[in-house]
Amino acid sequence: MKNKNLLSIILLFAIIILAAANLVQYRIYSENKPQNTESMKKESVKDAITVIHERKSVRNFTGEAVDSLLLIDIVKAGMAAPSARNLQPWAFVVVTERDLLDALGEALPYAKMLDKAGAAIVVCGDMNKSATHTKTDYWVQDCSAATQNILLAIEALGLGAVWTATFPYDERITPVIEILNLPQNLIPLNVIPIGHPTGVDKPKDKWKPENMHWNSF
Amino acid sequence: MKNKNLLSIILLFAIIILAAANLVQYRIYSENKPQNTESMKKESVKDAITVIHERKSVRNFTGEAVDSLLLIDIVKAGMAAPSARNLQPWAFVVVTERDLLDALGEALPYAKMLDKAGAAIVVCGDMNKSATHTKTDYWVQDCSAATQNILLAIEALGLGAVWTATFPYDERITPVIEILNLPQNLIPLNVIPIGHPTGVDKPKDKWKPENMHWNSF
Repeated sequence: MKNKNLLSIILLFAIIILAAANLVQYRIYSENKPQNTESMKKESVKDAITVIHERKSVRNFTGEAVDSLLLIDIVKAGMAAPSARNLQPWAFVVVTERDLLDALGEALPYAKMLDKAGAAIVVCGDMNKSATHTKTDYWVQDCSAATQNILLAIEALGLGAVWTATFPYDERITPVIEILNLPQNLIPLNVIPIGHPTGVDKPKDKWKPENMHWNSF
Repeated sequence: MKNKNLLSIILLFAIIILAAANLVQYRIYSENKPQNTESMKKESVKDAITVIHERKSVRNFTGEAVDSLLLIDIVKAGMAAPSARNLQPWAFVVVTERDLLDALGEALPYAKMLDKAGAAIVVCGDMNKSATHTKTDYWVQDCSAATQNILLAIEALGLGAVWTATFPYDERITPVIEILNLPQNLIPLNVIPIGHPTGVDKPKDKWKPENMHWNSF
């Protein structure tokens, strides 16, 4: 009699434990349920080719600030660009102070959207690191490659930006040098306003088969 | 007595059912277990930031041919680059013929790896589409941005490439014009040998915090 009662109690405990285990497993599964792969591609880990084609010139920002850690990641992407003889003839000035952003926006004819940008990156050529110190030197190519990496990283991170050129125009280069108090060895190639996009700017389809040629003419 | 036995049997059945449910749930979870995110990024949909950092100058190729459809995708990525006033002042010459690749390799001091490359893309500035037709014009910046897109697309597709500059050196520009019979309006900015990497070339870590500045100097 007593043994039977004991057995029933043991069995009851076993049931409670198993039921609890079932519940725990169900919760683990629900929490770790794999996401739809298509949405993962589009929303979390956008592949590089997609980002290249979705990148657009964003000129309309919400006015929100841009996280400093993201700005560091963006500059890191810039520094990953190739450069002639690996000279890395560049410097990246990250502008986050409101008065500096506004001063740049007032001075530059095509960077008026700085008033709503959360930050800007100024990509500069460093003449101390550049091979021949001439205006047709590689630094323009190297810094342009770095700029494209920056624009793609911004798109990949869900932010928006637009390349506004300063080089080779003295009337744009001079005010940038003055506002940021750049040392003599730095020439600003461009000013890249960065912010949270309002969503109105869309990528353009620029594929033109006539611009592609096979072998010789 | 009989009731107690019956209770024990019912409880035993309940235990068997719950244990089975546990097992089934565990199998469902194991089969659908989310993959390691790091390996997903690397193997299936390489995200843009990863590709930016994994891109390297590949100078060692297996000698295999490069699929023409991939070459079109790569040029499409190039054309997705931004350009000043959206003038798209570029032309892309895709070289796949062995004798042309070899002739370019013989003529260019830094493009000897063309002998093992499956193809090459020559990124040209189109002076008919360029704003001011000067050597310091935007076309160098625009074509450099397109070149970076091309290099990233190549990395994303599992191929390898290296940017070998021709501009601004006449002794490199002239033979490329001659070998490819380029029309007068095209200036070759670079020659990009493309192939299947042997695996020996690795990305460099070029992150230098001293090249990043905050606000003004």
